[in-house]
Amino acid sequence: MTATERTRVVVVGAGFAGLNVVASLRGAPVDVTLVDQRNYHTFQPLLYQVATAALDAGDVAHQVRDVLRTNLNARFVLGRVVGIDLDARHVALADGDQLPYDHLVVAPGAVYHDFGIPGVREHAYVLKSAAEALALRAHVLKRFEEAARDPDAVDAGLLNVVIVGAGPTGVEMAGALVELFEHGMRSDFPELDVGRARVILLEALDTVMPPYTEATRAYVGKVLRARGVDVRLGAVVEEVTEDRVRLKDGSEIAYGTLVWAAGVRAHPLAEALGVELGRSGRVPVADDLSLPERPGVWIAGDLAGPVGAPPLDGGEGAYPQVAQVAIQQGKHVAYGIRAHLAGHPSRPFRYADRGQMAIVGRSAGVAELSPAWGGFRFTGLLGWLAWLFVHLIYLPGHQNRLRAFLGWAWEWVTYDRHARLILEPIDRDLDRAGPPPPRGTLGA
Amino acid sequence: MTATERTRVVVVGAGFAGLNVVASLRGAPVDVTLVDQRNYHTFQPLLYQVATAALDAGDVAHQVRDVLRTNLNARFVLGRVVGIDLDARHVALADGDQLPYDHLVVAPGAVYHDFGIPGVREHAYVLKSAAEALALRAHVLKRFEEAARDPDAVDAGLLNVVIVGAGPTGVEMAGALVELFEHGMRSDFPELDVGRARVILLEALDTVMPPYTEATRAYVGKVLRARGVDVRLGAVVEEVTEDRVRLKDGSEIAYGTLVWAAGVRAHPLAEALGVELGRSGRVPVADDLSLPERPGVWIAGDLAGPVGAPPLDGGEGAYPQVAQVAIQQGKHVAYGIRAHLAGHPSRPFRYADRGQMAIVGRSAGVAELSPAWGGFRFTGLLGWLAWLFVHLIYLPGHQNRLRAFLGWAWEWVTYDRHARLILEPIDRDLDRAGPPPPRGTLGA
Repeated sequence: MTATERTRVVVVGAGFAGLNVVASLRGAPVDVTLVDQRNYHTFQPLLYQVATAALDAGDVAHQVRDVLRTNLNARFVLGRVVGIDLDARHVALADGDQLPYDHLVVAPGAVYHDFGIPGVREHAYVLKSAAEALALRAHVLKRFEEAARDPDAVDAGLLNVVIVGAGPTGVEMAGALVELFEHGMRSDFPELDVGRARVILLEALDTVMPPYTEATRAYVGKVLRARGVDVRLGAVVEEVTEDRVRLKDGSEIAYGTLVWAAGVRAHPLAEALGVELGRSGRVPVADDLSLPERPGVWIAGDLAGPVGAPPLDGGEGAYPQVAQVAIQQGKHVAYGIRAHLAGHPSRPFRYADRGQMAIVGRSAGVAELSPAWGGFRFTGLLGWLAWLFVHLIYLPGHQNRLRAFLGWAWEWVTYDRHARLILEPIDRDLDRAGPPPPRGTLGA
Repeated sequence: MTATERTRVVVVGAGFAGLNVVASLRGAPVDVTLVDQRNYHTFQPLLYQVATAALDAGDVAHQVRDVLRTNLNARFVLGRVVGIDLDARHVALADGDQLPYDHLVVAPGAVYHDFGIPGVREHAYVLKSAAEALALRAHVLKRFEEAARDPDAVDAGLLNVVIVGAGPTGVEMAGALVELFEHGMRSDFPELDVGRARVILLEALDTVMPPYTEATRAYVGKVLRARGVDVRLGAVVEEVTEDRVRLKDGSEIAYGTLVWAAGVRAHPLAEALGVELGRSGRVPVADDLSLPERPGVWIAGDLAGPVGAPPLDGGEGAYPQVAQVAIQQGKHVAYGIRAHLAGHPSRPFRYADRGQMAIVGRSAGVAELSPAWGGFRFTGLLGWLAWLFVHLIYLPGHQNRLRAFLGWAWEWVTYDRHARLILEPIDRDLDRAGPPPPRGTLGA
């Protein structure tokens, strides 16, 4: 096996799309290089459970090299891609190295998008990485510790969590937070009136969960309100300060924690592709997910869209930025590369929509199967169980699955969200030298 | 219940000693305030398993407030103690607050001790906190990722781990590392000759595991060497540079990772007590663990020693800095406070030594029971099982116990150390804005 003779495939990003490209190229006569800035795949749909102390960060992260163990034609490179040279056909890493390619798959995913609203970037948390989920968890818990020292601060909104965006992420986060407050914080902080900690869910549109059917949306709104979430529709955020969210109608909401679930944009690496970008920075692609006029360059996952012409999905032609689309696009790109190697024409990508599901809280989920899958709709316990089952299936890593299952079973029985830890980055001085020498307080 | 009328007990440190003081004061007519700089208790004996990817950080950390739930007379304060005023009878927190006390228990534990050897503080990792265990794990894994990019660096010692100190911590770390390399890294890095990654255990004395019997020490040395640890006795470290350890005999060892297990000293908070400190900064205490001439001030755990006069334990009179001593001293201090409240005299502390145990690696443990417990000695599988059983019993938190048990069972069956994650502190720019705009590489 001489690497120089085989077709070199470079895959940027170990998300759902990238991992599925690599897995679907197993056994193909290519040398695959998967590059990511982290050595693990992050199961983003469960990050909100890390932030709300139900799961540990390790439960939703799985090392990439473990996934590649049986892929004899794939290797992993830990690195950050900072540029793509489409003419010289290589990607540039932050440390100066270059990875040459014959086929390139660009699947870096999506990042934070503040729509230019002042203050969001500085003050809000976003559920896009394990580290940020841990930081958000630590932030919420520290606010309670501060309130325990200074109960008056509760009046100033210290314990309020404002979540902007009532799509699935915002709804799941809001539902989990009220449970953390009601069961975890109430017992942990007997000195506080935890009932005064509020979870406020802001949505600019006039409904929660916009992509769902009206019946589901009504159910979700009802459950959230019944459990204590302050749901405010038609609430457009205009500006964020250190401790206040100002809405377009002039009203202000005091907060201690701000979660941004209002939207994402495509990874800025899209700019390196030299094409005019679509809405939210996504890359318009041909119907086989290749970059037009750039043979051998493929786009998959959150970055891709709109797909083909004319647009497939109404005016936009872009698929939703969800795991199912990324998984299917990853597989499709691998098929396209295999077809190219065999001299066959590529096929257009078609999204097989199976439906959508989300969790509102304990024993309350919603699942809507697509018409092709029967069009069934579940809410309540059945929707919750369907959600748990599907997420366990897709969560990578056997031990992660076991740990998540145990965590959920435990929580369901005991109401205990066990990981209420303020795990913070290393502060060497705490363990190495201790606090600075106490002055003026030496005994006597 | 009016707080001002009841005796105020302030306990500094939520380690084994502090938690046992609080638990043993349950139901006493006192108001207990437990203060720690972290909101969780760290089960330090298992930190080496976090560093070697067998357990997650959350598995060995348990939130203090959960422990206090049934303690109606106790509250928790998250804060860092920076001074003690023994005359005004209060402790000072880093944020300026003061906690007044009638009884004070000082149990902050031990910190890193480099014996003044140049370079250790800058370059070595120490297993004293969950954050540092995660940082050490990330460091080792990153060295492998670097070697995968630049295999020549292996010749320069990039994959070598040097562990200084062959006490239980150093031995356990060395045994776990060779297993991580042999089973985890070998499959993860097919592109590397992992056999060239060396674990070098340096010990200044002429034996491993000094406090154990000669038969146990011989067994440990034999097992370590058979499993591939390079054990070097009589090796005194004189200086540490960025990538080299220089020994007193002039020889140098190249390393990629340095772990300091050679010793600890008492927490510098001891200096606030205004007494002459003993060896390694420990505080000489009366035989009931009180601070001489300071009624109402008690010392427990790693900080305490020597105890009473004349010295109980040979020339030193200080007990070993291990969990068993801290637990028993915590209970004893609580007894002393209760006796004081009831007007009874205090009793001298007596350490009920049950023995000692450590793990050398897979199916290989050592356990030595004290004469009072029969004086039995186990090595091999039986010692390993004894170790697992005892650590599961003492690990706080039901779910932690379940997770640790599953992790160990999983690893024993599959050889898989599942948590091979480079979990690093939040880098907001990675998720929020992505990499800097690529310049000069825009396509075309």
